[in-house]
Amino acid sequence: MAEFNSAEHSHRRYNPLSGEWILVSPHRSKRPWQGQQEKTAADVRPAYDPTCYLCPGNTRANGAVNPAYEGTFVFDNDFAALVPDVPAGSINVGGLLRAEAESGVGRVICFSPRHDLTLPEMATSAIRRVVDVWIDEYTTLGSHPDINYVQIFENKGQAMGASNPHPHGQIWAQRTVPVEPAKETVQQAAYFAEHGRSLLTDYLAIEVKEQTRVVLENEHFVVVVPYWAVWPFETLLVPRRHVQDITQLTDAEKDALADILRQLTIRYDNLFEISFPYSAGLHQRPTDGQAHESWHFHMHFFPPLLRSATVRKFMVGYEMLGNPQRDVTPEFAAERLRSLPAVHYKQTAK
Amino acid sequence: MAEFNSAEHSHRRYNPLSGEWILVSPHRSKRPWQGQQEKTAADVRPAYDPTCYLCPGNTRANGAVNPAYEGTFVFDNDFAALVPDVPAGSINVGGLLRAEAESGVGRVICFSPRHDLTLPEMATSAIRRVVDVWIDEYTTLGSHPDINYVQIFENKGQAMGASNPHPHGQIWAQRTVPVEPAKETVQQAAYFAEHGRSLLTDYLAIEVKEQTRVVLENEHFVVVVPYWAVWPFETLLVPRRHVQDITQLTDAEKDALADILRQLTIRYDNLFEISFPYSAGLHQRPTDGQAHESWHFHMHFFPPLLRSATVRKFMVGYEMLGNPQRDVTPEFAAERLRSLPAVHYKQTAK
Ligand SMILES: O=P(O)(O)O[C@H]1O[C@H](CO)[C@@H](O)[C@H](O)[C@H]1O
Ligand SMILES: O=P(O)(O)O[C@H]1O[C@H](CO)[C@@H](O)[C@H](O)[C@H]1O
Repeated sequence: MAEFNSAEHSHRRYNPLSGEWILVSPHRSKRPWQGQQEKTAADVRPAYDPTCYLCPGNTRANGAVNPAYEGTFVFDNDFAALVPDVPAGSINVGGLLRAEAESGVGRVICFSPRHDLTLPEMATSAIRRVVDVWIDEYTTLGSHPDINYVQIFENKGQAMGASNPHPHGQIWAQRTVPVEPAKETVQQAAYFAEHGRSLLTDYLAIEVKEQTRVVLENEHFVVVVPYWAVWPFETLLVPRRHVQDITQLTDAEKDALADILRQLTIRYDNLFEISFPYSAGLHQRPTDGQAHESWHFHMHFFPPLLRSATVRKFMVGYEMLGNPQRDVTPEFAAERLRSLPAVHYKQTAK
Repeated sequence: MAEFNSAEHSHRRYNPLSGEWILVSPHRSKRPWQGQQEKTAADVRPAYDPTCYLCPGNTRANGAVNPAYEGTFVFDNDFAALVPDVPAGSINVGGLLRAEAESGVGRVICFSPRHDLTLPEMATSAIRRVVDVWIDEYTTLGSHPDINYVQIFENKGQAMGASNPHPHGQIWAQRTVPVEPAKETVQQAAYFAEHGRSLLTDYLAIEVKEQTRVVLENEHFVVVVPYWAVWPFETLLVPRRHVQDITQLTDAEKDALADILRQLTIRYDNLFEISFPYSAGLHQRPTDGQAHESWHFHMHFFPPLLRSATVRKFMVGYEMLGNPQRDVTPEFAAERLRSLPAVHYKQTAK
């Protein structure tokens, strides 16, 4: 029989950040598709939409009126999943029915007053303002004694459940550390204890040397399709310097973060020449007062599209009951993303 | 402040089968929705579709011709994610790039020759034939020395990525135990070691006593919305008797399984009076030759719909980066499912 070749043969890959495995089936991208096609609404929106509850000057569902903001605008989510005033309490029936009250805060961050923009169409300086808001919010929320984890994220596009197309992100901050960052805490701590360096420092060194999965690099950040990527065009954005959270970034690093976010999201939009849907978010050290020296701040991008603007990857039956599975290799995805133009397709279209 | 009330206040619940937590936000079902609405294609299909590669007598993509089958029909998936002939091999770069060849088999099970049916519209005797196929396949595949886990599942509906509406399920069987059943193996073994009874035996006893989350019961099976349900109308189907896999079921239990599958899927279709999408699957002991005495066979149903036939629950930003989150309580969902008619809505429509 031929030798094992990960570009051709089905295999499992290990995610050292989560400690879990995924299944890769490189040969499978040829199967026929009679299933769901996404709608690709021609993405034409007005700069201001009088019915949008995120546009400047508009009234929200709870009667609050948005200011005539010019950069970013942050407010408490009117329909937050996490609220501060939850009476403490817990339930435990035989160790099998277990619940605990959970308190927290939900915030909404409008990235721009312009209803018709998204990150890749914004100027780097405007994205830098978003980075500054993330830093402010992480600092303020995280300093509260009842907030031990701050999850900053963006759901972009209808395919990712965004309930409004106005460019915005969210923050869910809470008392306990959620499952995914808790796994990363354990895995990073174990690695750091053994090697004295952060897991992502060593991982980046390998990726920068191999280059096969690198999508973008600037002076301070690297974007790769991680070796263990689950979503077809999933990426991981990592600072070259080992910092635990975004408050530690220097001014130059903050600019570099804005720059690489713009570059990455432009590549994404250029992939299928649509406003590319994804969920993305920051993973940083818990704000529980511990040092978490092993934590290495990073961002995940999870885009659902697979073959075209209309065919998505479904994480369903096998994936829900077994483990995640992907059809194209991370190396193939990185190669495709890397080869895309650096200029947004709307700019080059006449 | 009021006392903690899990029907009102946000809280976390613990899943003892996986060892992970989920966030429950009972107050959140009121948020406005300007996001994606599912298409609800009026589900009218011919009994036979000449273009369907699963209908009897039709030719598949690889040239094979389906027999004129009358009950069920099982064949090797023409585009399987897992294939038997993978050369052994592995990769390990610094413990950070790790891969292993993975072999296995993909099977497709047509539930019925009728293109226009689904489980809830089939006779109990026809569903019983599907149960028998599951038993046969689990036995045959599982006896192969290179197959240590057999995942039987169904993706139903476009919303769950089903690539063809013909009623069918799949089997992915493989060398290693996937992540989810591996977690359940650890959790069930720990519980059994401590209590000398299976985790699900003790859990069922609590649920049958409390009744709040019970959706259906027959002599041999119970369906509950589990205390830790993630999806809005998620259910767990459990045999009253502690068996490790379906091959151990008695004839009466097999009939009872067919009966409760029919009853459950009828309730699902009746919920929004549509052909209700879900991914469902069996979790059974690994076929690695070990006894796995602690394993208690069960089925999970993961349906994506939340408020109506057109509004689904998205497991996106926070859920991908933090942990699963739900908006309505499991108790509310159970109450809704329980109150639905036992007769399929298409039968009662004139
Ligand atoms: O095998 P199918 O029906 O073509 O494909 C469907 O089920 C598979 C197993 O859950 C998933 O990996 C695919 O994303 C989904 O579209
Ligand atoms: O908060 P939104 O945008 O209304 O809602 C969206 O993001 C949330 C956080 O990922 C999810 O829980 C919702 O299912 C999704 O529709």
